[in-house]
Amino acid sequence: MGEVVMARHVPATAPAADPRLEAVLLLHEIEMFNTRYAATLDEQRLMDWAEMFTDDGFYLVISRENYQRDLPVGLIYCENKGMIRDRAFALKETAMFAPRYLRHMIANLSVEPEQPDGTIAARANYVVLQVLFDRPDATLHQVGTYYDKFRRTENGLKLAERRCVYDNLLVPNALCLPV
Amino acid sequence: MGEVVMARHVPATAPAADPRLEAVLLLHEIEMFNTRYAATLDEQRLMDWAEMFTDDGFYLVISRENYQRDLPVGLIYCENKGMIRDRAFALKETAMFAPRYLRHMIANLSVEPEQPDGTIAARANYVVLQVLFDRPDATLHQVGTYYDKFRRTENGLKLAERRCVYDNLLVPNALCLPV
Amino acid sequence: MGEVVMARHVPATAPAADPRLEAVLLLHEIEMFNTRYAATLDEQRLMDWAEMFTDDGFYLVISRENYQRDLPVGLIYCENKGMIRDRAFALKETAMFAPRYLRHMIANLSVEPEQPDGTIAARANYVVLQVLFDRPDATLHQVGTYYDKFRRTENGLKLAERRCVYDNLLVPNALCLPV
Repeated sequence: MGEVVMARHVPATAPAADPRLEAVLLLHEIEMFNTRYAATLDEQRLMDWAEMFTDDGFYLVISRENYQRDLPVGLIYCENKGMIRDRAFALKETAMFAPRYLRHMIANLSVEPEQPDGTIAARANYVVLQVLFDRPDATLHQVGTYYDKFRRTENGLKLAERRCVYDNLLVPNALCLPV
Repeated sequence: MGEVVMARHVPATAPAADPRLEAVLLLHEIEMFNTRYAATLDEQRLMDWAEMFTDDGFYLVISRENYQRDLPVGLIYCENKGMIRDRAFALKETAMFAPRYLRHMIANLSVEPEQPDGTIAARANYVVLQVLFDRPDATLHQVGTYYDKFRRTENGLKLAERRCVYDNLLVPNALCLPV
Repeated sequence: MGEVVMARHVPATAPAADPRLEAVLLLHEIEMFNTRYAATLDEQRLMDWAEMFTDDGFYLVISRENYQRDLPVGLIYCENKGMIRDRAFALKETAMFAPRYLRHMIANLSVEPEQPDGTIAARANYVVLQVLFDRPDATLHQVGTYYDKFRRTENGLKLAERRCVYDNLLVPNALCLPV
């Protein structure tokens, strides 16, 4: 809870004059965040993953069906960073987590203009490919959309909300992996 | 037919001095268009999809084999927006369309410099993932390349041509879905 | 060989003042390279593919398992452009190569700032989708990560190193295709 939320957006450098350019720079910033996020999960660095959220960060993995019906029932439901850390820690200790490779592909990113309070809404499509160690082929583990809110903090850009809305689960895993 | 084609490209703001920057801004503009395009189809908003074309918009879905042989035989062939609207309307009324989720992933975008008449040639690779409601797994519905011509109109950027050239159809669907 | 390595980075135009903008321009440049690279392989223009490397270009296709254990055993191992050209020529003559379609999807690109010697480190995730002519469906041929070093030469940007680290091979092909 030592986190101080920046009340106003303080950009690293003076803002660009051209609004088209400002949009490109913001998209690039979010894209780089998502790339780091994917690498963190692909490399199974779960504790680093938890640190990508704000202290009050909300994380949800939910089916498209439940999301559209406004049913809050999700595979994973975390209301703050403490719960996200607990999830990461628990998975790290789980023998079932390790013996698989995951690979994220993120595309179709769109970003709304930054709000005066430093909040940025965004969405992107994702595919998570999985290789189990006892099977030779890659499979489509999960396909879906991230609905996000980012926020600027003194420790840089963080996820204040990430709702992962999946179309499917190929393997209805007993083990609920973050995506 | 009330559409007025802008004879010359009138950018929203003054053009950037740096040609590298101009290329980035144009790529970004097309990328955002493709992201909106994909969302329109993923959310099954077919009438909105039809409006992303110019009045004389050409839309084709064709196999790589036929495309390479210059055979005009395609899964879908529309010569103008009227035909595209007809297709969208017909599908909307088809009970077979709804019970599936589609998810586009678009990548490997390249964009040619804008022509004096406001035409922009582009291409991108796409994958469409499908989840049928009576099956739990996602499948590769279609994999291919968009060969595009965009044009600036008074209603913003529109597709004057989109040729969707697919490598395969996993499910040789009786139902021909736009991609 | 006849290639002259540019000792210092000489940008096409004056560098942008804003470091954020410089990062966007560099990412864009690498992204366009990767898009051309993918098209070259997707269109089976293997001799063009070989020319995308520096004279001392290093090309490796290796499993994630061997890569993590620092085992140099790879599916493909080329220490310079001569070896890469040999590989391209041999495949071109192989009847087994042609009867398939390949389609690359590259995403999650990240790029390090350019070094004073003109070297640029980068990485990206890739999926290669394959359609065999005697099977109707697309399959996940290979999923992995490119670990790259680019270098500026008098013939433009080239790959000095590309390590393709794959999570899997769906079809443990006797035929080792470049990716």
